[in-house]
Amino acid sequence: MQRSDFGDQPCSVARTLDIIGDRWTPLVLRDIALGLSRFSLIQRDLGLSRKVLAQRLGALLEHGVIDRVPYQEHPVRYDYALTEKGGDLAMVLLALQAFGDKWFFGEQGPPLQWRHRDCGEIARLATCCENCGKTVRAGDAIPLPGPGFEPERAPELAAAVARYTEQAPTP
Amino acid sequence: MQRSDFGDQPCSVARTLDIIGDRWTPLVLRDIALGLSRFSLIQRDLGLSRKVLAQRLGALLEHGVIDRVPYQEHPVRYDYALTEKGGDLAMVLLALQAFGDKWFFGEQGPPLQWRHRDCGEIARLATCCENCGKTVRAGDAIPLPGPGFEPERAPELAAAVARYTEQAPTP
Repeated sequence: MQRSDFGDQPCSVARTLDIIGDRWTPLVLRDIALGLSRFSLIQRDLGLSRKVLAQRLGALLEHGVIDRVPYQEHPVRYDYALTEKGGDLAMVLLALQAFGDKWFFGEQGPPLQWRHRDCGEIARLATCCENCGKTVRAGDAIPLPGPGFEPERAPELAAAVARYTEQAPTP
Repeated sequence: MQRSDFGDQPCSVARTLDIIGDRWTPLVLRDIALGLSRFSLIQRDLGLSRKVLAQRLGALLEHGVIDRVPYQEHPVRYDYALTEKGGDLAMVLLALQAFGDKWFFGEQGPPLQWRHRDCGEIARLATCCENCGKTVRAGDAIPLPGPGFEPERAPELAAAVARYTEQAPTP
């Protein structure tokens, strides 16, 4: 892989990090996802500078993961909200939360819980297999090259992934 | 919230970002998760400096998400692997991948796919409700304060979350 131009990588993790891969952006996104829709509220909650927040919001707008609607003219002020794309990105926040709930708040209990509208229960939101619905943990799934794989651009990874296929050939 | 001391926040997202919230660490973790166990291989794959890689590996070791076993003495060289905690953190990578697969590789198809050992199928790994097993998308779940919530430390967030509870009172 080349240095730092993550937006060009043949890897979905790297490409997504190009949007969310710094320490403030996920928290800005968390705040908007939870309904803190205004600049001043997000700024107060996170305690970051106006300049940094404006930059992060600008990048999120550019990536199309948030949208904004003016609620005031002179001076213009906006309400920010997640787009459909932003809602998909928010799943990364749930994964970050699941880890933190277990490893940092295991005894005390999590700061935030979720009630699933559909089943009505307060439940953990976890990673699962969309085919069978079972919760997936590390080692439960075997990586294999997909249509977008470019082995020549990542020979080390290609070799590592090939080893899995050799160990567990397609049935 | 206070500036930058994410490791002390009453928020599972912030606390986890304290481990994984920079641009290189998730890729280092991805490489180890996929079986690139050696310093030189990871370095070659990611094209980052030895110094930065050593620093990131050191931090991951300190957080207990990776472990290392010497495979050579004089000079000592290690194989790196995920711990149980690291396996849980790898779920964040799957969430990053799911987003990237959809939004960057939607037409072409994903670079990497997963075969779920349990059901044998190549399937998407998505966020779901652990109670009912259904896939969860943004808006499908309602946040509510958990045992670890500290409203006085995050009054803006507390107010935002309270609004959900008012709109959808506990049945």
